[in-house]
Amino acid sequence: MKNIFFKQVALFIFLIPFYATSQSSVQSSSDSLFIKQISDDIFQNGKTYEWLHQLTKGIGGRLAGSPQFAKAIDWGKKTFESIGVDKVYLQECMVPHWIRNGKDKAVITAVNNKPVITQLDVLALGNSLGTSSKGVNAEVFAVNNFEQLEANKEKIKGKIVFYNYHFNPTNISTFISYSDAGKYRWTGASRAAKYGALGVIVRSMSGATDNNPHTGGMEYNDSFPKIPAVAIGLQDADKLWNLTKSSSVKISMATHGKMLPDTIGANVIAELKGSEHPEEIISLGGHLDSWDINEGAHDDGAGVVQTMEVLRVLNALGYHPKHTIRFVLFANEETAGRGAEKYAAVAKEKKEKIIFAFESDAGGFTPRGFSFSVPPSSWTKLNTWKSLFEPYGGSTFTVGGGGADNEPLQEAFKTPVAELSPDSQRYFDIHHARSDVFENVNKRELLLGAVNITALIYLIDKYGL
Amino acid sequence: MKNIFFKQVALFIFLIPFYATSQSSVQSSSDSLFIKQISDDIFQNGKTYEWLHQLTKGIGGRLAGSPQFAKAIDWGKKTFESIGVDKVYLQECMVPHWIRNGKDKAVITAVNNKPVITQLDVLALGNSLGTSSKGVNAEVFAVNNFEQLEANKEKIKGKIVFYNYHFNPTNISTFISYSDAGKYRWTGASRAAKYGALGVIVRSMSGATDNNPHTGGMEYNDSFPKIPAVAIGLQDADKLWNLTKSSSVKISMATHGKMLPDTIGANVIAELKGSEHPEEIISLGGHLDSWDINEGAHDDGAGVVQTMEVLRVLNALGYHPKHTIRFVLFANEETAGRGAEKYAAVAKEKKEKIIFAFESDAGGFTPRGFSFSVPPSSWTKLNTWKSLFEPYGGSTFTVGGGGADNEPLQEAFKTPVAELSPDSQRYFDIHHARSDVFENVNKRELLLGAVNITALIYLIDKYGL
Repeated sequence: MKNIFFKQVALFIFLIPFYATSQSSVQSSSDSLFIKQISDDIFQNGKTYEWLHQLTKGIGGRLAGSPQFAKAIDWGKKTFESIGVDKVYLQECMVPHWIRNGKDKAVITAVNNKPVITQLDVLALGNSLGTSSKGVNAEVFAVNNFEQLEANKEKIKGKIVFYNYHFNPTNISTFISYSDAGKYRWTGASRAAKYGALGVIVRSMSGATDNNPHTGGMEYNDSFPKIPAVAIGLQDADKLWNLTKSSSVKISMATHGKMLPDTIGANVIAELKGSEHPEEIISLGGHLDSWDINEGAHDDGAGVVQTMEVLRVLNALGYHPKHTIRFVLFANEETAGRGAEKYAAVAKEKKEKIIFAFESDAGGFTPRGFSFSVPPSSWTKLNTWKSLFEPYGGSTFTVGGGGADNEPLQEAFKTPVAELSPDSQRYFDIHHARSDVFENVNKRELLLGAVNITALIYLIDKYGL
Repeated sequence: MKNIFFKQVALFIFLIPFYATSQSSVQSSSDSLFIKQISDDIFQNGKTYEWLHQLTKGIGGRLAGSPQFAKAIDWGKKTFESIGVDKVYLQECMVPHWIRNGKDKAVITAVNNKPVITQLDVLALGNSLGTSSKGVNAEVFAVNNFEQLEANKEKIKGKIVFYNYHFNPTNISTFISYSDAGKYRWTGASRAAKYGALGVIVRSMSGATDNNPHTGGMEYNDSFPKIPAVAIGLQDADKLWNLTKSSSVKISMATHGKMLPDTIGANVIAELKGSEHPEEIISLGGHLDSWDINEGAHDDGAGVVQTMEVLRVLNALGYHPKHTIRFVLFANEETAGRGAEKYAAVAKEKKEKIIFAFESDAGGFTPRGFSFSVPPSSWTKLNTWKSLFEPYGGSTFTVGGGGADNEPLQEAFKTPVAELSPDSQRYFDIHHARSDVFENVNKRELLLGAVNITALIYLIDKYGL
């Protein structure tokens, strides 16, 4: 009897997966065909790469408040209009206006009191204030981390602190290493100023093989003097660290950063009106601003043009969404996130029903999948679609992401959010560095990201979340 | 009763996966820990990138028969010796000795009989013979494919045939587009010579955005005249195609290719002797030769240094294999595959028991998984290991691959074979073009490939296939 039962069970077990497979393949065959159409159209007729060229080579670095950012807003609006859309508008918001204001310099001027001149490749951190016209001339105190800073707090006064914290090479997702190292850039200046430091030099948040410094946002703690702060390239960081091990090293730093009064910026928004649930909004976007010292090609030109491509291809295939699909180019992700705040504030004011918000802001690299912050029932539903993404490389679904520009929305309304997860191996080689330029974006990788994003938006529109 | 049965079945069904998971996670926790050690060691102490620099910048292009190829053999042997290994030896074989012998040129000399001078960027195809010293001066006959050639066979005589066959952008695996387009490069010259063509120009097998021509192997059919053959860059191909649509176009071609007598080359082989089954061999490798016009960084410098890295990291972690692991740097994959033939011939002669043969020859890009040609029972076993590769991006297992250098082995002995499947989006941008240089290999992507390969070799050594 046991054996018979076992046989029946075994049969049942073998049948279930087969039945499940055949069921889901019937259900999804029209979806897989439509996604193949999306992919073919993007690879044959896509404008993504051409738009990225316009945004990067035509406009360039687009720091919030800069003339280039104003140009980018205008370009975004006109490009949306050229694609064909139910509605395009600007959502104005005040943005901070930090300017670099000159060439950032750091020079080793003495080693063991012997005069030398060794230029270091540095970039002032975003939001940091410049040195006086005389610069900062002081001895370097090098530490690997905050623990070493605290242990030596009485030795910091009058020095330039050099944080040589290494980007951990062993994390396969480089975002983990970035999160880990980021505190030195964001808070390092004030933590050193607390103990009387005159300036800080931060090892770039990168594992690149070149010497490009990587800038990025920082914040002062108002309780302490607002000292200058620069990022240093990795080869120079190693050189400086080795020097400080055996010698006293003097550095002369000159930066020119200024915080001007807030100025007007805008989110650029386009909409395709839903045929069945026009009041329910699926939001997707990228951020239009970038750093000043590069072209913001991966960060986040890629997300901007992928967002536009979703609109283009849905139009090209004659797809009429059930829900309203909203395409958002956010202002000011890099220095303060004011575009995202404004977007959430308007959604609150207008009592909008945003059922899902998506962002692409992890670079235009080959897609691996998506990261979701959604309720359990949505997670279960999403996972039934995974096989549809397999042919396009985007079937790795993880939990926890959503994109920085969706955070205010998520905090205020628990909006289900997600972001594209491209392969992260190359991202921090170019992130916030001079090398984030058009030439370092691969056309097929960028397009394949757009394919996966469009497929996700299509499925959520068709089946809900 | 039916309901009770169903409940029991349901319980059973829910228990089985749980039990299976908990079983396999116990079984594999030591494996996942060891693979994490492999990964950490490769990312912290790996020599892969440094070796690639030596091979590409120190030696450069390594066409079979060239002085650089001889240097590469010497370098390979010495590098293996420096890692520490039970045995290193050269397996000599005769290789063809094709030389480019000068600068390949193609110039548009007349449009509708009006003289012009428009240089085109071309490279002679490997194995092709040069023009006479006067070059070939003739009108162009442009076709998109062989069907158009056949349909116009009476118009070909005395012309230069231009094959403008496009690399299909809609295949997500770019290898499919390459296989599809490859016949124009391999056989296009003789198919046109059959109808009296004096030369052929082949649109490069690539979807790149630049104008670099992509060379590669070709073969003459001895029944027809051996006419010169060049690959043309994509921008120049579009330009030429558009011109020929409305105008008669004359081109002057000059190439210098020569086939010298076969010369001596060698496979470079290292071995770690197995502790339990020394007579059973796990073989892995890449090919040491490359084209002459680049540094062969992805093709196949990456496979060479990843192979060496597997040896280095297993040694570094004190791993003693059960089976003999053999590391092979193959001679002459690009023009004739003589290294691979020799390897299989020696295996036959010595009655070697090669239980598995692996190759990395699809570029040093971020790994997606592996492609296997193995018996069904091995396939089932391999699939139980997939989750171990997930953290390292290499868990997509497909059927059908094995690497060109393992083909003679597979054909002779049905040896189970596999190859690394890196992301293919960028490969044919640089494949056989001047741009296949060290700078276009990303360190982390290259290393991550080595991590996945080592994990696979480790699991096969530990558990068999």
